[in-house]
Amino acid sequence: MTQDPLIVFTPSGRRGRFPNGTPILKAARSLGVDIDSVCGGRGLCGRCQVRLSAGDFPKHGIVSRDENLSRANPVEARYDEKRGIRARQRLSCQAQILGDLVIDVPPESQVHKQVVRKRAEVRAIEIDPAIRLHYIEVEEPDMHNPSGDLERVMTALEEQWGLARLECDLRVIQGLQKALRGGDWKITVVVHRGQVLTTAWPGFHDRAYGVAVDVGSTTIAAHLCNLASGEVVASAGVMNPQIRFGEDLMSRVSYVMMNPGGDKDLTAVVREAINALFKEVAAEAGVATDHILNATFVGNPIMHHLLLGIDPTELGGAPFALAANSGLTFWASEIDLVEINRNARVFVLPCIAGHVGADTAGVILSETPHLSDEIVLIVDVGTNAEIVLGNKDRLLACSSPTGPAFEGAQISCGQRAAPGAIERVRIDPETLEPRVKVIGCDLWSDEDGFDEATKTTGVTGICGSGIIEVLAEMYLAGILRKDGTIDGALAARSTRVRPDGRTFSYLLREGEPELCIQQNDVRAIQLGKAALYAGARLLMDRLGIETVDRVVLAGAFGSHIDTKHAMILGMIPDCPLDKVGSAGNAAGTGARIALLNQRARDDIAEIIKRVEKIETAVEARFQEHFVGAMGIPHTNDPFPQLAAAVPLPVPKADGGEAGSATGGRRRRRPRA
Amino acid sequence: MTQDPLIVFTPSGRRGRFPNGTPILKAARSLGVDIDSVCGGRGLCGRCQVRLSAGDFPKHGIVSRDENLSRANPVEARYDEKRGIRARQRLSCQAQILGDLVIDVPPESQVHKQVVRKRAEVRAIEIDPAIRLHYIEVEEPDMHNPSGDLERVMTALEEQWGLARLECDLRVIQGLQKALRGGDWKITVVVHRGQVLTTAWPGFHDRAYGVAVDVGSTTIAAHLCNLASGEVVASAGVMNPQIRFGEDLMSRVSYVMMNPGGDKDLTAVVREAINALFKEVAAEAGVATDHILNATFVGNPIMHHLLLGIDPTELGGAPFALAANSGLTFWASEIDLVEINRNARVFVLPCIAGHVGADTAGVILSETPHLSDEIVLIVDVGTNAEIVLGNKDRLLACSSPTGPAFEGAQISCGQRAAPGAIERVRIDPETLEPRVKVIGCDLWSDEDGFDEATKTTGVTGICGSGIIEVLAEMYLAGILRKDGTIDGALAARSTRVRPDGRTFSYLLREGEPELCIQQNDVRAIQLGKAALYAGARLLMDRLGIETVDRVVLAGAFGSHIDTKHAMILGMIPDCPLDKVGSAGNAAGTGARIALLNQRARDDIAEIIKRVEKIETAVEARFQEHFVGAMGIPHTNDPFPQLAAAVPLPVPKADGGEAGSATGGRRRRRPRA
Repeated sequence: MTQDPLIVFTPSGRRGRFPNGTPILKAARSLGVDIDSVCGGRGLCGRCQVRLSAGDFPKHGIVSRDENLSRANPVEARYDEKRGIRARQRLSCQAQILGDLVIDVPPESQVHKQVVRKRAEVRAIEIDPAIRLHYIEVEEPDMHNPSGDLERVMTALEEQWGLARLECDLRVIQGLQKALRGGDWKITVVVHRGQVLTTAWPGFHDRAYGVAVDVGSTTIAAHLCNLASGEVVASAGVMNPQIRFGEDLMSRVSYVMMNPGGDKDLTAVVREAINALFKEVAAEAGVATDHILNATFVGNPIMHHLLLGIDPTELGGAPFALAANSGLTFWASEIDLVEINRNARVFVLPCIAGHVGADTAGVILSETPHLSDEIVLIVDVGTNAEIVLGNKDRLLACSSPTGPAFEGAQISCGQRAAPGAIERVRIDPETLEPRVKVIGCDLWSDEDGFDEATKTTGVTGICGSGIIEVLAEMYLAGILRKDGTIDGALAARSTRVRPDGRTFSYLLREGEPELCIQQNDVRAIQLGKAALYAGARLLMDRLGIETVDRVVLAGAFGSHIDTKHAMILGMIPDCPLDKVGSAGNAAGTGARIALLNQRARDDIAEIIKRVEKIETAVEARFQEHFVGAMGIPHTNDPFPQLAAAVPLPVPKADGGEAGSATGGRRRRRPRA
Repeated sequence: MTQDPLIVFTPSGRRGRFPNGTPILKAARSLGVDIDSVCGGRGLCGRCQVRLSAGDFPKHGIVSRDENLSRANPVEARYDEKRGIRARQRLSCQAQILGDLVIDVPPESQVHKQVVRKRAEVRAIEIDPAIRLHYIEVEEPDMHNPSGDLERVMTALEEQWGLARLECDLRVIQGLQKALRGGDWKITVVVHRGQVLTTAWPGFHDRAYGVAVDVGSTTIAAHLCNLASGEVVASAGVMNPQIRFGEDLMSRVSYVMMNPGGDKDLTAVVREAINALFKEVAAEAGVATDHILNATFVGNPIMHHLLLGIDPTELGGAPFALAANSGLTFWASEIDLVEINRNARVFVLPCIAGHVGADTAGVILSETPHLSDEIVLIVDVGTNAEIVLGNKDRLLACSSPTGPAFEGAQISCGQRAAPGAIERVRIDPETLEPRVKVIGCDLWSDEDGFDEATKTTGVTGICGSGIIEVLAEMYLAGILRKDGTIDGALAARSTRVRPDGRTFSYLLREGEPELCIQQNDVRAIQLGKAALYAGARLLMDRLGIETVDRVVLAGAFGSHIDTKHAMILGMIPDCPLDKVGSAGNAAGTGARIALLNQRARDDIAEIIKRVEKIETAVEARFQEHFVGAMGIPHTNDPFPQLAAAVPLPVPKADGGEAGSATGGRRRRRPRA
């Protein structure tokens, strides 16, 4: 008796014997080999391509020959002609076993392929979206054996895809007749999490997109992703139009408190902006909004509530109670999203606590501190800094009221990060003369051609990251004293330091507009950085640690500031400079992970359960740290007396001096 | 060692021993004794009242004494003062065991109490609504241990009611904050089928209503029910405003076919009418529409589809494919219902086949042929007659195109059943003189005072049931020949019979308006009754039977016609007259059963699976029966020749002659 041919799949190594004539896809399925398919083996989608590995494989005890695989059949030929089969690959649903074979499944044909991210320290995203497309052939109605279109669709899904007991909304039933008849009883259905039938399209369809949205208080950013490849096909950002109701979060909550029902206005404008953004990314990528089937959202608690149409008033005062702290799944139409498939599903990541939002949940998904051996401090700076600290054993989170100074608000010459804004500053400690760089120009202001290059934008103000640099540089140059006062004695040495009422200011740039750093600007940043530092220290106290292994700065601000300057100012705790990194928009990345990987939605629910939530507002230690952290570089002593500073290195033009400006002093502080 | 006291509950007979001080409700719960409660044992709802049965019960081996039950405590006293405790009853959540007791649970305190229906042949409705109210006390938010309002509500539901993993829509979350704070963290929640949290009210709340709706092509009827008692607190009906798009169903489908998108108009007006109806029944009963938490619907397939916003065009031609044939559950807002709690759930009973609708599913729930030993024929007459035949072993259903004649349309002097319409007719076979009764007047037209009594309404036309009577009486008086022609020879004997073009008519009433039965009127009824009879015969053929054990006439028409006259005309197959009954609006009753008993919703899904669906449009036998049934009394011979009639009894003024007018003849027909 001869044995059936042996098939070995790589890279999984799964193997089994199958009769001659068995399609490769069928063999793969029965062995649990991960091969993608939308059309269910009908040669329509091309997702299931594999490659024959010919040769002698003593390791597998097999000789795999070209002739052991059937020749391309007409279905494959047609697919190749219409959409193209990749070089030396075959449609595994069509190619049949004729003898022993080694079959390689390339990454792009795997269901759970991975999207590798740029930063080495973060994990690749495994593609496993909540949305799946399934092509089905549905039995036609028969008046002798009457049944509903819906029920015949459900039968086909169970028989052809093993999907049973799906739920289905009325809106889907309303559109089913046309889809079935338009597709001659062949349709492609969209299934959400293997549970809900959300859309039916006539015929074969394999375009599925999703959009990940970060709803920030200042900016709303959307990333349109291809749900099959995980690729970001378009991104766009827009100012949060709620700004007209209040620059910062608390002023928006105040608006709602002063104007009962006013939350409806805030909700309406943010939803409107999101619709515009969806339309924009879809247009940019040439994708029909109807093909956007899923959306995920992150945002701070107040943005989260306003997006969902929940009055945020409760978040404006103790006990800062969230309306919900679970991840929520619902229909896009429930939050008035229209520039998206009308039956699209939405997932909103969970908020963690009254001040620690779904954005932080996104940051955790992106930065995975819960999987880290090292103790990681993650800081997402905004009007509130959301802070996460810990590792795989313990995770803590809090929010710290840094105020809007880091975003350029409350700074006399502050502005948002835009062309013309100063983002880099160096001050000569001898002459006290500054040189600057502005957004949109690669030259320093003392280099030839700077004036020409900045002619159209001008030099209009200073953005958040620029403020950090100028203050750190002012401190390094001795202009700023340790208690944060501008040293008026220097006015005798330089016209840059000049009286300004009862205090002094530093002239950063002459001309129109004239840009000065005033004493109040320094105070605003001192308050912000002290709050940030105090929050981080509070969590460190809870964890019983004096130093962290790694610091991650998240958010737009975090990705632009120079970490060294931030540390000179004492914004973040001491850490080797090469262990301080920026994560970019980690919250948005978290939304993208939840979009591309459905299990991440369940994971984050579990993770945030074990996050220890610290409410800074009621922690006496927070106030102590805060007061102690006002100085530059700060002290942790409970009173605002400045400790003797370790001499700071004078930086060269472009960094390179690793090491800590403040570490020596802090290590001397006895444990509380 | 002394034993704990023994408690015996009646009528269940459940018994057990419990320590002194155990509340009766707690003991009942642990024994699985069925006692209702909304407040969870807090003495707020009064649902759990029980009665001590004092005395010696040798059967139970127990002496039950008054002093073995604790005295009324302040909670009971307060409840008694505010809302009243029924005589000699106690709140079982407050009354405590102090010794051996026999405790009777009266029907009104049982969760699964029954609503007894008027007709002896139908089963009582067990109250087990899909909607339940649960009073809970929710933990207050704590910023040291932050959690969402929603999650604390869910925890309370699990801890206090054992309800786990409930789903919850965004709209409920949006309202949760206010409910919790308004009720000082005590709320009453509405739970649908133990699965979905639909509404939250501040404080204690025990008013839950539901509405059962029969969406007919002509009339829409709504019954508002108290979900705790099952009582119908208000009913109302309204003309279906779709009539302006077409009198009968097919003309409405034609409207949609001729006006693409026109189904939206039909859908909008029917939903609008339902909203008005809800408002009306709520006002009539003094119930806030916000307290209507559930609605159930029945209707024929076209009404079903239009209500749900599904294009009915497919139902207008073969293969008459339904969009869905499952019972559907969704939010009231999805079909634009507003005069109802905004989070109300809706259940629409399943359609059975393209011509056999959810109304028939309702009829089956009401009349329970699937539980019957006898073979029952159920006929729901409308523009289409929906016909069910069978018993507990087999059940068949079909629809027969009777046309609108039975509803008074296509009859020259026909009108809807309303005051002034003739509903009863007797014709003297000697003189051919008629006497009539009209709706709204108890007198016959030959009795003194008739003219006076009908002065305001007049005698304006003849309604469906009147048409059946007048034709049967014309036949009995010899005016109508067996082939349905009006015998012109009688014009010589009576001025009542008079030439009318090439045929003759019968003057039913002189005056203004003059009411005549024309030859064409007879033809319209002949067509209708032949279709009805043919449908029933077709099902009988399938079942291989010649006679049925029982006939049920359902629907408004069925409840008004005189069954004897219907049988004389040959509308329904032969059956002993005392086994022919009218069920009233059985479809509406079915909707009410589904409203009051959630398991009925699952039951009907199972029942309709085993219903054999017969499509009359493609059955050759249907045409044969139809042609054969045109005569009066009809024959079943496949050709329109009239068999020799058995002499018909001449009726007395008020019936009483049971027995069949047509049976003798039909029994002679050989089996096909």
